[in-house]
Amino acid sequence: MIDLDQLSLDEIKELITLAGSIRKNPWAYRESCRGKIMATLFYEPSTRTKMSFQTAMYRLGGEVIGFDNPDNTSVSKGESLKDTITVVSGYADLVVMRNPLEGAPAAASLYSKCPIINAGDGGHLHPTQTLTDLVTLYNEKGRLDHLKIGFCGDLKYGRTVHSLIRTMTRFPGSSFVLISTPELALPKYVLDVMDAAGCSYTITDRLEEALPELDVLYMTRIQQERFSSREEYERQKGIFVLDSEKLQLAKPELKILHPLPRVEEISVEVDSDPRASYFDQTVYGVYARMALILTILKSQSRPEKRKIPRSTHPHRCSNPKCITQTEAYLPRVFREAGDMLLCAYCDSGTLI
Amino acid sequence: MIDLDQLSLDEIKELITLAGSIRKNPWAYRESCRGKIMATLFYEPSTRTKMSFQTAMYRLGGEVIGFDNPDNTSVSKGESLKDTITVVSGYADLVVMRNPLEGAPAAASLYSKCPIINAGDGGHLHPTQTLTDLVTLYNEKGRLDHLKIGFCGDLKYGRTVHSLIRTMTRFPGSSFVLISTPELALPKYVLDVMDAAGCSYTITDRLEEALPELDVLYMTRIQQERFSSREEYERQKGIFVLDSEKLQLAKPELKILHPLPRVEEISVEVDSDPRASYFDQTVYGVYARMALILTILKSQSRPEKRKIPRSTHPHRCSNPKCITQTEAYLPRVFREAGDMLLCAYCDSGTLI
Amino acid sequence: MIDLDQLSLDEIKELITLAGSIRKNPWAYRESCRGKIMATLFYEPSTRTKMSFQTAMYRLGGEVIGFDNPDNTSVSKGESLKDTITVVSGYADLVVMRNPLEGAPAAASLYSKCPIINAGDGGHLHPTQTLTDLVTLYNEKGRLDHLKIGFCGDLKYGRTVHSLIRTMTRFPGSSFVLISTPELALPKYVLDVMDAAGCSYTITDRLEEALPELDVLYMTRIQQERFSSREEYERQKGIFVLDSEKLQLAKPELKILHPLPRVEEISVEVDSDPRASYFDQTVYGVYARMALILTILKSQSRPEKRKIPRSTHPHRCSNPKCITQTEAYLPRVFREAGDMLLCAYCDSGTLI
Repeated sequence: MIDLDQLSLDEIKELITLAGSIRKNPWAYRESCRGKIMATLFYEPSTRTKMSFQTAMYRLGGEVIGFDNPDNTSVSKGESLKDTITVVSGYADLVVMRNPLEGAPAAASLYSKCPIINAGDGGHLHPTQTLTDLVTLYNEKGRLDHLKIGFCGDLKYGRTVHSLIRTMTRFPGSSFVLISTPELALPKYVLDVMDAAGCSYTITDRLEEALPELDVLYMTRIQQERFSSREEYERQKGIFVLDSEKLQLAKPELKILHPLPRVEEISVEVDSDPRASYFDQTVYGVYARMALILTILKSQSRPEKRKIPRSTHPHRCSNPKCITQTEAYLPRVFREAGDMLLCAYCDSGTLI
Repeated sequence: MIDLDQLSLDEIKELITLAGSIRKNPWAYRESCRGKIMATLFYEPSTRTKMSFQTAMYRLGGEVIGFDNPDNTSVSKGESLKDTITVVSGYADLVVMRNPLEGAPAAASLYSKCPIINAGDGGHLHPTQTLTDLVTLYNEKGRLDHLKIGFCGDLKYGRTVHSLIRTMTRFPGSSFVLISTPELALPKYVLDVMDAAGCSYTITDRLEEALPELDVLYMTRIQQERFSSREEYERQKGIFVLDSEKLQLAKPELKILHPLPRVEEISVEVDSDPRASYFDQTVYGVYARMALILTILKSQSRPEKRKIPRSTHPHRCSNPKCITQTEAYLPRVFREAGDMLLCAYCDSGTLI
Repeated sequence: MIDLDQLSLDEIKELITLAGSIRKNPWAYRESCRGKIMATLFYEPSTRTKMSFQTAMYRLGGEVIGFDNPDNTSVSKGESLKDTITVVSGYADLVVMRNPLEGAPAAASLYSKCPIINAGDGGHLHPTQTLTDLVTLYNEKGRLDHLKIGFCGDLKYGRTVHSLIRTMTRFPGSSFVLISTPELALPKYVLDVMDAAGCSYTITDRLEEALPELDVLYMTRIQQERFSSREEYERQKGIFVLDSEKLQLAKPELKILHPLPRVEEISVEVDSDPRASYFDQTVYGVYARMALILTILKSQSRPEKRKIPRSTHPHRCSNPKCITQTEAYLPRVFREAGDMLLCAYCDSGTLI
């Protein structure tokens, strides 16, 4: 599970249904993974994501090993990703990997003896967050089609935003409202995805304007370092702060999501509004991950060692954050798209 | 379980009895918490306390998630205590919190969806250590009433001393001998507690003088940084070192306790004396925590979301280490005591 | 289990047989240690070794507590090894200790209330790695006698090399080829062990020369800091790099082992050669540790508190890395060997 786009819509719906069954009757599943071990390889710390995965595995009866700081590991002695994953996938039945380098889980999956779940690879993908969002939407809104979703805040760097939009374009009738400053606007390639899917969207920098028509509001954290100066940050951030006053403009059946942690972009007073779903979202996240772990461990017998593909092109990926920059033995695999080569690991385009 | 004073004497006795039953027959309890998850949120590291809680939970068949270093968590991204506890209490069935800020567990309990155990909040409270001390005393002395207990060392900053004295004043016939330098003497408010309970106590700076009459000697670590100079430390520390020679003055049925770690205040030669109970004390600590966890998880169905109280006063708590200093959204709740306001979180007094 | 030399050849063979049974039918053992707790006390980090032990214990149904960084523990407050092991062995059923000081596990075993496994004490011993090597050899070669084993790389500092040689001299017909630069040659005392056992060995600095006759090639990591200069390192390291070309000289039934992590001393291309056993070796390591844990926990009822031996000599061990240098209370125990005193903890010789 490197990318949610690997899954068919039916497979996604099955995961959502399974998450619902687990939620209704968690004790029926508490021995489902007894005797199984999940390894959490966190090349950068993310306690929240790790705790969610650990909780999911423990509630299925399994055990967890792993590290959250490569400084203390063989990695710091110069070990390659290939060697680390080969060894650890010999210990565990399932590996959950978080890595600041884009495409690392895809690269690791070439050598792993067991399934890998991508728990975030830099700014690239974070599929279990998106699955969490889908489970939340389905349960809180009762459907995944014909939803008008507003995204507010940092739409440029927010990988959870890109990922959720891409997945929602696969459901009929999705439309989007993009609420941000021009500096933090959605990248063109995501706009292209919406266009290609025939989804309608509007762009605004006024949260108040957008609020009345939304079924869902997806808030994101605005990081101060994205702005040119402290002053610029202070001047702009208020525009994208959701408070009780602004919320009076919204529908009663609106649902507010946020991938958390939240800093100041949602006032504390909103927490007690019944439309606030961002804390429930973290609980749905555990059920989403339980469904994913269970599906992977049940459906798959240990996969045959994957055939390592050959390099398709002599080029190097030009993305400086791509895993191929540090792991030189990786075959150089690209797919062609017009005059671009798209890296098979990080999906970045390199001009030929 | 924020403060042992919340519990009635009967409830404390029930915990001690349950700890005894578990000690006698631990295997009868090894599935008692199967399927339950405890989260250990340690905002400052304390490996010993954490290992004791983990051992307790594992011996009950449960699982443990958590962190021991907030640097790697959402906290370092500016997340509030309220948000952290809201999310984590959605993952776990029980939260154990250690925090350098006083009143943090009390504050967290306002927002938590599950019970919270205070595993130490700065210099304020450490109720499971006190429960450990009580279980040790009951098992080693056969009773909790009519004990003459000497406290030796750092009585000024030792929260375990303050806490145990406060609890022992609730048992009939307790009397105390306070052995320290004037600089490290017991704070006046603890003396007041003893007076109010009608307990007798004597004050001395001579361990040898006190030893012959004691039923229990509670030693504490003297931290060098408490003294005005290295010379002062070296000059004074010997007075409060327990060795085999001094121990000849004591009753044969004396029991020696120490919250550990011990540095030099008890000579290694004392370890093999049958009166040394400080290592057994750590084993009793596991049974004490097992009894507490089991009682909390059995008796309580998930509590209704607590009603957040309103601020009772416009004042701010004046304790610079109070949790309200950093978490501005907390309601300002005080109880009046004469011309003082006592903070509902850290119990510090603020002059009106 | 401080030193593999404690065990008789029959006991070693029983462990290897048990590891084989577990490997064939792991699910038969998955409840064998239910309710048991293993403490991993890692005074220096070693994520790989720790994950292997954790995996072993979880696959037996047990639980794990511990620390991997003494900075956050009572140790940093000045606690002695004696106190730490006394407390932790009261929590756990089994302690796994890694310590940069030589002889630390032997010292700890004097005070522990439960069995201790040495998971590496500085450059001294690492018996579970050797047990892993033996299990690998037995399964990959079908026998442990009459093997010609080449050791290549850093033979001076590689404790796994010393330890495996010492153990292999106990099996009939072992012979050795020692492949290294003079600077990294095997220490004389290991040569003496081979001589005493009547084992033949040859010394060379040419990997190509040695390869054709070997049954087993044991590669080790050459650490750059062992060389006098960067240039010297670059010049020499190539000689000891195993690649596909050199491998053409070897027997088809050769097996290549490596304690990992590997850096550049084995080319990545060798990984897909059927003679490469170094990744399988890590999987055998889990079975080896399962066999060891199971044997220890089954066979031993909690040992009586060990009688602390008296000092046999007034001398201090002269090894600056010996645990007796920091833990002054340890009795000074030596055995005499000619004009040397051999330290009972670190086995180093001190001239009388």
